[in-house]
Amino acid sequence: MVTATICTIGDEILIGQIVDTNSSKISTALNSIGVKVISMVSTSDTEEDIINTVETALKASNVVVITGGLGPTKDDITKKTLGKLTGATADVENKEQLEIITKILSARGMVPLSPLNKAQALVPNSCKVIPNEFGTAPCMEFEIPEEKYGHKAVMFSLPGVPFEAEAAIPKVLDSIQAHFSLDKIFHKTICTFGIPESTLAQRIEQWEDNLPTNIHLAYLPNPILGVRLRLSIYGVDEKTGLQELAENQASLEKIIGNAIYGEGTDSLQKVIGNMLKEKGETIGVAESCTGGFLASLFTSQPGSSAYFYGGIISYDNSVKINALGVDPAVIEKYGAVSQECAEQMAAGARKALGTDYAIATTGIAGPDGGTPEKPAGTVWVAVALPDGSTLSTRFCFNSTRRNINIERFASNALNFLRLQLIKQ
Amino acid sequence: MVTATICTIGDEILIGQIVDTNSSKISTALNSIGVKVISMVSTSDTEEDIINTVETALKASNVVVITGGLGPTKDDITKKTLGKLTGATADVENKEQLEIITKILSARGMVPLSPLNKAQALVPNSCKVIPNEFGTAPCMEFEIPEEKYGHKAVMFSLPGVPFEAEAAIPKVLDSIQAHFSLDKIFHKTICTFGIPESTLAQRIEQWEDNLPTNIHLAYLPNPILGVRLRLSIYGVDEKTGLQELAENQASLEKIIGNAIYGEGTDSLQKVIGNMLKEKGETIGVAESCTGGFLASLFTSQPGSSAYFYGGIISYDNSVKINALGVDPAVIEKYGAVSQECAEQMAAGARKALGTDYAIATTGIAGPDGGTPEKPAGTVWVAVALPDGSTLSTRFCFNSTRRNINIERFASNALNFLRLQLIKQ
Repeated sequence: MVTATICTIGDEILIGQIVDTNSSKISTALNSIGVKVISMVSTSDTEEDIINTVETALKASNVVVITGGLGPTKDDITKKTLGKLTGATADVENKEQLEIITKILSARGMVPLSPLNKAQALVPNSCKVIPNEFGTAPCMEFEIPEEKYGHKAVMFSLPGVPFEAEAAIPKVLDSIQAHFSLDKIFHKTICTFGIPESTLAQRIEQWEDNLPTNIHLAYLPNPILGVRLRLSIYGVDEKTGLQELAENQASLEKIIGNAIYGEGTDSLQKVIGNMLKEKGETIGVAESCTGGFLASLFTSQPGSSAYFYGGIISYDNSVKINALGVDPAVIEKYGAVSQECAEQMAAGARKALGTDYAIATTGIAGPDGGTPEKPAGTVWVAVALPDGSTLSTRFCFNSTRRNINIERFASNALNFLRLQLIKQ
Repeated sequence: MVTATICTIGDEILIGQIVDTNSSKISTALNSIGVKVISMVSTSDTEEDIINTVETALKASNVVVITGGLGPTKDDITKKTLGKLTGATADVENKEQLEIITKILSARGMVPLSPLNKAQALVPNSCKVIPNEFGTAPCMEFEIPEEKYGHKAVMFSLPGVPFEAEAAIPKVLDSIQAHFSLDKIFHKTICTFGIPESTLAQRIEQWEDNLPTNIHLAYLPNPILGVRLRLSIYGVDEKTGLQELAENQASLEKIIGNAIYGEGTDSLQKVIGNMLKEKGETIGVAESCTGGFLASLFTSQPGSSAYFYGGIISYDNSVKINALGVDPAVIEKYGAVSQECAEQMAAGARKALGTDYAIATTGIAGPDGGTPEKPAGTVWVAVALPDGSTLSTRFCFNSTRRNINIERFASNALNFLRLQLIKQ
């Protein structure tokens, strides 16, 4: 098995200033091609620490991916240290990266280049450059001779800026696949919503037990995306692999049915958007407790303007009454957090926005405002349908954690909408 | 200097399934009491890997904080392994944790306890328990005799669930302070917005150079919070420390003035909320390109219902016209992304929502929809004031990255609003 260690360099991570998201992305990518990540390490930006960390990593694994420590101001340490470690005899200017640096800094009016910026294009002559199109620091690849650590190894140095590191990942994977003969792995991610992880595990236990031994299942729970199930199949050709995955997916569908909302990188808002686009229909929102977050999920989707017309955030009851036409007597009698209010909000938003559908939320996000009958974490969701009728449901998460409640309210509202759209 | 290593145990992190946020929180906490974090390591859930990782950490540092590997299903490995490593001779039941487990599982209707759940209260007799009030797995503290690694050391094992780990941190800090005599450190975080990090660094260069040698400055940039400056002062008593920090903050204010919006954990939405609450005034939003995200920032703040009345998300032009009263001729002549449209949106929202202020955004979040004159990343922001007048400004970030544009649009809109509120 080809193994990997991921190293991050720099004090920002060690002092807790930033959370390391690169390692997780790189790890997901390495695992997807069948490289096993055995360790992740963060170390500080000193020559001694870098050498110790990288040598330990190279001794233990075939692939070492390093991020960080390449910024223009502290540039020298990581790049020079890796050059030293790999026996570089000189620095050479990389033309391709120099062109990118010039282009990026011209756009910012920072030409002619300062010596510091120009030096970003210099790399040790022991490396191969993977140009970084989104930043000034080039990515570097170092082949480590087999005699050095007793096994074949290749080391990559990527920038710490997340989107620059992410952009380099496909080329890193290509290179690893060229260096090592890897077992083929094929993946399929099945997106589910509405069944909690532990319940889902119980419901599909028998199906899971019957999976062939070369198929591995991982649960990926997420408050907004639901529980995604990732199936990975090893040691077969592509055609067989994809067919086996499809067969197992089909037998899963028989058990959990429309709790499955999509595949791969699907999200509830994307799937809903596609359903609406296909029908040529439009939607709007009326939000109380989710306060704009539900709309922001819709509009995070590129192209959402084709079906998402807008929304009314009726945080104050006056807005529920004036902009959505909720009957003040309903609020007085049942409260703003009620089935009646939610349904009037949805119907009012559909009318005010001129859309085919509208979806409304009203609840108690907390931490304050809960009562014994309506504790924080309670939400009513209503959907107004094209025929003018409304459907509603209640969720109760019994939690005072405001931002987590808001996320759960919004994602469960989307899922309720999705289930109604399926029936239309 | 007292040094620390933070270890995370478990495959979820190594396969990239979850991002490790615990290490960053623990690191911030350790640094705040003057413990230097020298390394962070993630390792898998096997006895060999745990022993290797923990022994390496104990050799290199005085404090080792471990998270993860304590779940009921895989419980045995980490707890037993740490017991073995520290010479435990038996497992003992911790009464206090057993009570917590019983309480938590009773609330979920899971009593009487299963043997698996009851076993969560068993700990090696080489540890001291720090009860975990929010979960079933107890936190453990192990004192390592000085002769073992040639230096005094203490090791903590915390659950991997982020809020359970976070809840244990204060007790971990207390224990570290009881074991080691640490240099006192005092911190002050100054929140700034509106000056990019590199420009800010240039503008305050001289001030930074003049800082006393016992004050350390860190830049903490964040797309929503702006650039926060953290000042840390070492080796003085509290009174002197706080006074010196205040003096340096005052001299910084003379240079960057109202780019400073707050301190500590302040956010733009919190500061704006406090200003509005103090004045007894209200606000609403009209959002096009930010699509609900601006409202969600306002409503993420507990208690925001006191001043945030609501908003109108006018994604489609029909909503701009019908719900906000934007003149169709304005959209035809200047386009929806224009100063004129933004100002009419703000004025229309103020009227429709019945608030003192309203803030509007209209722009191109991308990736598509940009033109040479109005590239993706362009936004117009307008604020309607209590006297009925409107003020507006344009930001251009020249980027097609949709979600980052939305974040920048919303945070810059908030900052523009803040600057207007200061003048009112």
